[in-house]
Amino acid sequence: MTESRRLAILAHEKFPDRAKTALGVMRYSDDDTVAVIDRDTAGSRVHDHTETVPDAPIVGAFEDINEEVDTLLIGIAPIGGGFDESWRPDVRAALEAGVDVVAGLHYFLNEDEEFATLAAEHGADIHDVREPHAGIGVAEGRSDEIDAEVVLTVGTDCSVGKMTATCELVTAAREAGIDAGFIPTGQTGIMIAGWGNPVDRVVSDFTAGAVGEMLLEKGDEHDVLFVEGQGSIVHPAYSAVTCGILHGSMADKLVLCHEAGREVVHGYEDTELPPVSEYVDLYESLANPVHETEVVAGALNTKDIEDDAAAREAVGAFSEQIGAPATDVVRFDAAEIVEEL
Amino acid sequence: MTESRRLAILAHEKFPDRAKTALGVMRYSDDDTVAVIDRDTAGSRVHDHTETVPDAPIVGAFEDINEEVDTLLIGIAPIGGGFDESWRPDVRAALEAGVDVVAGLHYFLNEDEEFATLAAEHGADIHDVREPHAGIGVAEGRSDEIDAEVVLTVGTDCSVGKMTATCELVTAAREAGIDAGFIPTGQTGIMIAGWGNPVDRVVSDFTAGAVGEMLLEKGDEHDVLFVEGQGSIVHPAYSAVTCGILHGSMADKLVLCHEAGREVVHGYEDTELPPVSEYVDLYESLANPVHETEVVAGALNTKDIEDDAAAREAVGAFSEQIGAPATDVVRFDAAEIVEEL
Repeated sequence: MTESRRLAILAHEKFPDRAKTALGVMRYSDDDTVAVIDRDTAGSRVHDHTETVPDAPIVGAFEDINEEVDTLLIGIAPIGGGFDESWRPDVRAALEAGVDVVAGLHYFLNEDEEFATLAAEHGADIHDVREPHAGIGVAEGRSDEIDAEVVLTVGTDCSVGKMTATCELVTAAREAGIDAGFIPTGQTGIMIAGWGNPVDRVVSDFTAGAVGEMLLEKGDEHDVLFVEGQGSIVHPAYSAVTCGILHGSMADKLVLCHEAGREVVHGYEDTELPPVSEYVDLYESLANPVHETEVVAGALNTKDIEDDAAAREAVGAFSEQIGAPATDVVRFDAAEIVEEL
Repeated sequence: MTESRRLAILAHEKFPDRAKTALGVMRYSDDDTVAVIDRDTAGSRVHDHTETVPDAPIVGAFEDINEEVDTLLIGIAPIGGGFDESWRPDVRAALEAGVDVVAGLHYFLNEDEEFATLAAEHGADIHDVREPHAGIGVAEGRSDEIDAEVVLTVGTDCSVGKMTATCELVTAAREAGIDAGFIPTGQTGIMIAGWGNPVDRVVSDFTAGAVGEMLLEKGDEHDVLFVEGQGSIVHPAYSAVTCGILHGSMADKLVLCHEAGREVVHGYEDTELPPVSEYVDLYESLANPVHETEVVAGALNTKDIEDDAAAREAVGAFSEQIGAPATDVVRFDAAEIVEEL
């Protein structure tokens, strides 16, 4: 990971429940969050709303921050990934103060004339994490040449908790004394890590190549690399990205992520999920011709199960279905499966 | 398909053996090829070199063409997809004559200042077929709502003949009285059809969506739609595109394409191809959770087998391995498998 930054996180009207990126960055990045910017909850503190992340003051505007900040991070995304004009005064104020801006929107702030001019005038950088760099190309099929073991999270669907599982596994591995690295593939993961290729935004022919490039870059710096997976291999829209990451990572081990109770594809309710055990066969048989791999553990997201005992039971059933140890990495402890990896 | 055009096909120094796009368009499109432009073979005729396509004169430059032409098509591609400056006088002459230009290069002619200016001045269109249109988005998972039956060619590797098989099947189906349509997904296919989305060049998240959009557009115009496949589901670099087309097309039937004697992945010689029978399982098990499908026929490319009897034998063995009828659609006859579809 890069040097730690001092962040202001913009999350107007959405903190904390609809600010998934803000919470992810606060929870998992090495950066310090100096302040959250949310005009609705201004005046309160982060811990008044959630204790799952470090505390910080909440202010109404960038100009109300009293401490030193080096980066403004856009921690929310409206549907469609557009830029909300009500955020413009905060971005303008940050750039005028020479503060870098990081955003994961489909609307690239670098292409906004006012912002580009201000950034140039004040020596600030704008980092649109969803804009792939120009050097990404076709995969070379060399990800298996690196020293590090590669562990990839794969899912039964979108939004089952692959990014969270990956980050929790990195943390648990480090706590167990393992030199673990994180390979981000999506916008929140990239904001957490401070670097990375937005694999879902590259040219489709370069999907595997975008992953391979990151592994070749970091492959000799760590003993284990945890790759953030995306989508599902049987998703009606996003399976291409999943398949590209599977073959591009040439993963040695897979962790299958699932949400308890999920029965149909999120947003495609006509399409039923196949049985969990079938995913194990699908991922392994598809990966093996390129690089031998195995599902060695499972991560079950039990957030919709109220009772801890019932959650334990669900985890046990999931473990039996996939034929490997499993846990809920948030409710219980990722350390329970780290020894498998 | 669109109205038929009167084409000049540029193929400098490469006609016919290294001009795959030129030959594909001459063989399969509804367009008339008025002339081929190749400074090396200028003065001869197409049939002096190959009789697999309609005859036409070969000239040394666009300006040497005596007949009326409405479109100049770039029928060759250097490695890397760049523009060869030695072609500039021909493109310039075409645009100055108000003739449209079609190209499938990575270098977009629309972004070339001289060409863009000439096109505007003379009312000519430049069509860079590799540039996806801006409206392509995430797949809706509705390709199964169309009236037409969908047949997709899938492969054991790149460059085994999927595009050729698809075109031969369309032709054979039409000869059998079936109202068949062609859904192109790559640059040559798009040039043949005169329309289509370059699926390997769209944003990876939109891979399935780029296919679905075409099926929804053409789905009620034909009884059977033949979708051109790309790559292979276990390709180290291109599997993402293959997977996106598989799920985006929601194909009812699959035709498995293979090249006799191919044992390792083209360009990735360390990676062995799995047994042909395993591909049948892989494609079916991966497709089924989204849309039920089956490999109903095989197309074996036997171009490296000299003897017809040996080729027949290879086709027989291939058919047995995949558990479905097979043929070589070029050497023998696509009609042999059309009845399966």
